[in-house]
Amino acid sequence: VPPARPARESRVEMTELVLPNDANPLGNILGGKVMHLMDIAGALAAARHSRRVCVTASVDRIDFLHPIRVGEAILVEAQVTDAGRTSMEVRVNVYSENLRTGQRRHTATAFFTFVALDEHGRPTPVPAVIAETPDEQRLQIEARRRRQARLARAGRV
Amino acid sequence: VPPARPARESRVEMTELVLPNDANPLGNILGGKVMHLMDIAGALAAARHSRRVCVTASVDRIDFLHPIRVGEAILVEAQVTDAGRTSMEVRVNVYSENLRTGQRRHTATAFFTFVALDEHGRPTPVPAVIAETPDEQRLQIEARRRRQARLARAGRV
Amino acid sequence: VPPARPARESRVEMTELVLPNDANPLGNILGGKVMHLMDIAGALAAARHSRRVCVTASVDRIDFLHPIRVGEAILVEAQVTDAGRTSMEVRVNVYSENLRTGQRRHTATAFFTFVALDEHGRPTPVPAVIAETPDEQRLQIEARRRRQARLARAGRV
Amino acid sequence: VPPARPARESRVEMTELVLPNDANPLGNILGGKVMHLMDIAGALAAARHSRRVCVTASVDRIDFLHPIRVGEAILVEAQVTDAGRTSMEVRVNVYSENLRTGQRRHTATAFFTFVALDEHGRPTPVPAVIAETPDEQRLQIEARRRRQARLARAGRV
Amino acid sequence: VPPARPARESRVEMTELVLPNDANPLGNILGGKVMHLMDIAGALAAARHSRRVCVTASVDRIDFLHPIRVGEAILVEAQVTDAGRTSMEVRVNVYSENLRTGQRRHTATAFFTFVALDEHGRPTPVPAVIAETPDEQRLQIEARRRRQARLARAGRV
Amino acid sequence: VPPARPARESRVEMTELVLPNDANPLGNILGGKVMHLMDIAGALAAARHSRRVCVTASVDRIDFLHPIRVGEAILVEAQVTDAGRTSMEVRVNVYSENLRTGQRRHTATAFFTFVALDEHGRPTPVPAVIAETPDEQRLQIEARRRRQARLARAGRV
Ligand SMILES: CC(C)(COP(=O)(O)OP(=O)(O)OC[C@H]1O[C@@H](n2cnc3c(N)ncnc32)[C@H](O)[C@@H]1OP(=O)(O)O)[C@@H](O)C(=O)NCCC(=O)NCCS
Ligand SMILES: CC(C)(COP(=O)(O)OP(=O)(O)OC[C@H]1O[C@@H](n2cnc3c(N)ncnc32)[C@H](O)[C@@H]1OP(=O)(O)O)[C@@H](O)C(=O)NCCC(=O)NCCS
Ligand SMILES: CC(C)(COP(=O)(O)OP(=O)(O)OC[C@H]1O[C@@H](n2cnc3c(N)ncnc32)[C@H](O)[C@@H]1OP(=O)(O)O)[C@@H](O)C(=O)NCCC(=O)NCCS
Ligand SMILES: CC(C)(COP(=O)(O)OP(=O)(O)OC[C@H]1O[C@@H](n2cnc3c(N)ncnc32)[C@H](O)[C@@H]1OP(=O)(O)O)[C@@H](O)C(=O)NCCC(=O)NCCS
Repeated sequence: VPPARPARESRVEMTELVLPNDANPLGNILGGKVMHLMDIAGALAAARHSRRVCVTASVDRIDFLHPIRVGEAILVEAQVTDAGRTSMEVRVNVYSENLRTGQRRHTATAFFTFVALDEHGRPTPVPAVIAETPDEQRLQIEARRRRQARLARAGRV
Repeated sequence: VPPARPARESRVEMTELVLPNDANPLGNILGGKVMHLMDIAGALAAARHSRRVCVTASVDRIDFLHPIRVGEAILVEAQVTDAGRTSMEVRVNVYSENLRTGQRRHTATAFFTFVALDEHGRPTPVPAVIAETPDEQRLQIEARRRRQARLARAGRV
Repeated sequence: VPPARPARESRVEMTELVLPNDANPLGNILGGKVMHLMDIAGALAAARHSRRVCVTASVDRIDFLHPIRVGEAILVEAQVTDAGRTSMEVRVNVYSENLRTGQRRHTATAFFTFVALDEHGRPTPVPAVIAETPDEQRLQIEARRRRQARLARAGRV
Repeated sequence: VPPARPARESRVEMTELVLPNDANPLGNILGGKVMHLMDIAGALAAARHSRRVCVTASVDRIDFLHPIRVGEAILVEAQVTDAGRTSMEVRVNVYSENLRTGQRRHTATAFFTFVALDEHGRPTPVPAVIAETPDEQRLQIEARRRRQARLARAGRV
Repeated sequence: VPPARPARESRVEMTELVLPNDANPLGNILGGKVMHLMDIAGALAAARHSRRVCVTASVDRIDFLHPIRVGEAILVEAQVTDAGRTSMEVRVNVYSENLRTGQRRHTATAFFTFVALDEHGRPTPVPAVIAETPDEQRLQIEARRRRQARLARAGRV
Repeated sequence: VPPARPARESRVEMTELVLPNDANPLGNILGGKVMHLMDIAGALAAARHSRRVCVTASVDRIDFLHPIRVGEAILVEAQVTDAGRTSMEVRVNVYSENLRTGQRRHTATAFFTFVALDEHGRPTPVPAVIAETPDEQRLQIEARRRRQARLARAGRV
């Protein structure tokens, strides 16, 4: 098992301009585009933590709180919260930024589970997560609760 | 309020070839690409039912059961299960198809909530859903339970 | 030679939302985008029938009867009509759907010829096509006539 | 009616590198990608001739003579051959170029018909085509024959 | 003229996974893809500083120091260094990150000039830049020297 | 060392339609899109000259003289000016064409340096460049001066 690594080292930040093709005819970004970016940011955070190619095993519910519009920026932040044996939970936050007014809004939060794969595509052990700040520690405790719920619903416990 | 409409009329079917850019270095499709397709199929089903532009309000948890590989086909099916006043629940199923062997596998199922918007981008009433088959009727009953849970977690009841 | 297979098993259905980048400055979808989708749907139908990677050998003339506009859905249906030794004819139909009114219009029909390739990229035998419905039977007979015409024009008979 | 214009002024040349996403699992470019490029080159030639937004009315049969592979260049040439009242015929030629050997191969030729649209999206008159070289003159004569055949098959004469 | 704003508030960070379509047949990212990302990051930093849509007026020479490969992450950082009346200089840094080893390498640095546009597309005044750290102060002084060189070469002084 | 080859044989011409996703909210093409096309055209010219996969080593400053708008055509021309041992300088010119008026404007010129790679990704010798026209001869002489300046700034002489 590789040595434990601080949560913060996995942190990924993405910024993108919302373009016309990402939007519906009213000019609102498609939810699928947001999920696509969330998944890529999350997979990069998981890959940084585990130094492995990671695949998406699951994502918990996502609520989209506010629309994001063409011409605005979309910000995505991802960081590992906790690790199991071969899986990691990653929290992904999404914000919109109106470039004209500078206003930022929290649009969505989601918890993804990624599984690290070896060269043969089989699940492989990942480092434990060192939660350093109080925030990271709270997230790690909650992650363990969420993990139980996930395994239960997947019929694994 | 527009007149009720059968669930089956909203049904959307999508088929896509998985291309190299949709995949990680091991050749597995990215979860984000799958979610992107699921959301578009779901939004089309909601638009067909409501005859309105629809935005994604939320998606319940998704488990990705099997990888889908470059060169395989991905099939996405979406159908409205039930409607509230301005929102609709859509069930989206994803299958992979190995074109070489013909084998199909169920990869994921998710329940999306879409909200219909009028010309000004405000939520607008949608038709009720007529569930015709026993399957559709069961899904509609379950949809109502899921709706309660969703509103509870969003702090709306 | 692999055993014959029913035409209907090859049937592919695609639905897509027309996005701004698919269109000219008047908001009409580009013909090239439509042909691109037609070819992918056709190639998937041919791959399903033959269980092989298939390449486009030719396409008969296509008339575009009606414009399709940004924000509408485009539906593409493809099904194998008949098979030669290594080639298959696939009929591809395109419809537009105005999501606001529900109106569907037939936009184009085309007959593609695909050739199945083995691992070395060489043409390889494909199953015969079992035409089950009267419609499929008529299409199969016509396919044989079209095949003669195609071979004649290519100077192969 | 705008004044006549030489065929050669409409000439469009395109060069593209074939990327992995344009190809099937054997590394051959998808026919649909080629048709997409042909249509854009043709539409640009028609727009140059008519100074209008042009839509694809039809394309005659296309035979794909040789595969084009990932890493090769694809060359597309388009030039107006003749004009009707509101429509133009454009000839589009496609070549592949192996960048390693310098070998060029003729892959496909097609005749597209484009219709010029005014601001309201209605067909609008286009300049006549002045064929200057013997080659252009031969193409123009043949274009008129092809036009008759097209109108006949579309049930317009 | 809008009030001055700290350089650091304009800072943009982007992370992307390098996919097969971004690369040449040897698996190295195309320089054009890198420049595309650099320009978007730079334009977002300029937009953040000026609260306006910004266009690229120029970019100084770029040296690409190391290849970036498919499957690696590409990191782009952009921050405004100084502002003129309607133009801003933005420094853009690019790093590659090998997700397997964690190794980061500095790939390129460039200085872009963006011009802020008003609703009518005309250059419009931008806030001055407050350089807070010694590094930012040095960059600002150098930016003024670069600006003189740029205006000279553009024949503007 | 492969035999010398005329500059003109490397010439590449590209034409593209500017689509909504290439542009900012005011409808102007993004500088990054232009640089992306310039790099691809340049890399194709270098590959044609050297018959090798080529990577971008550097690009000299670029000034963007005029905006290019959605619905216009963008023309990119690239031609090798001179060669070192393993590197080539390529001049890339960009023009916009308003399809409605036929007006063409010179938008940008840049000098790229590409390096030819062998199968193992190592720099490999390229043919000398035969400058045939007076224009090509002047460009070749200037290229040598630019090469000295580039090597000096990179601290290589
Ligand atoms: C994720 C996957 C590798 C798990 O395979 P498996 O045979 O169940 O492997 P294991 O039983 O060894 O489980 C591996 C880990 O995944 C976790 N896991 C499996 N299914 C899960 C789910 N639905 N939600 C959360 N975690 C899950 C297990 O708990 C285990 O974690 P641990 O090692 O930290 O305890 C497999 O389901 C898969 O390949 N899914 C598709 C992934 C993919 O390609 N996604 C993209 C879109 S399809
Ligand atoms: C969805 C949205 C329109 C709801 O706005 P609102 O001000 O809460 O509107 P209302 O209170 O009138 O609720 C409208 C409907 O949405 C439902 N809804 C709101 N939030 C929801 C959530 N998180 N999950 C499920 N349903 C939700 C409500 O129950 C209501 O349904 P009903 O009419 O059937 O009873 C708004 O949150 C929004 O615009 N979100 C962003 C949507 C989007 O652009 N998504 C793409 C990616 S950001
Ligand atoms: C092409 C289109 C504008 C013709 O409309 P219409 O009502 O038939 O118009 P008209 O009768 O005035 O004909 C206009 C011209 O188109 C030509 N035309 C129409 N259908 C044609 C066909 N299938 N093949 C070749 N030419 C055709 C006519 O001959 C006429 O040419 P002319 O003016 O040179 O004599 C219309 O069919 C259309 O909009 N099609 C969709 C175009 C499109 O959006 N394509 C992209 C993919 S869907
Ligand atoms: C950049 C542009 C707006 C300048 O227009 P202009 O008529 O020269 O405007 P001005 O003379 O008012 O100059 C505006 C600012 O641009 C700066 N500028 C102009 N050309 C420049 C260049 N090549 N390099 C750096 N700065 C430049 C001027 O110094 C001035 O800056 P200041 O206000 O801080 O002193 C114009 O050249 C343009 O639209 N270019 C195309 C931009 C574009 O669309 N780029 C994307 C790809 S084409």
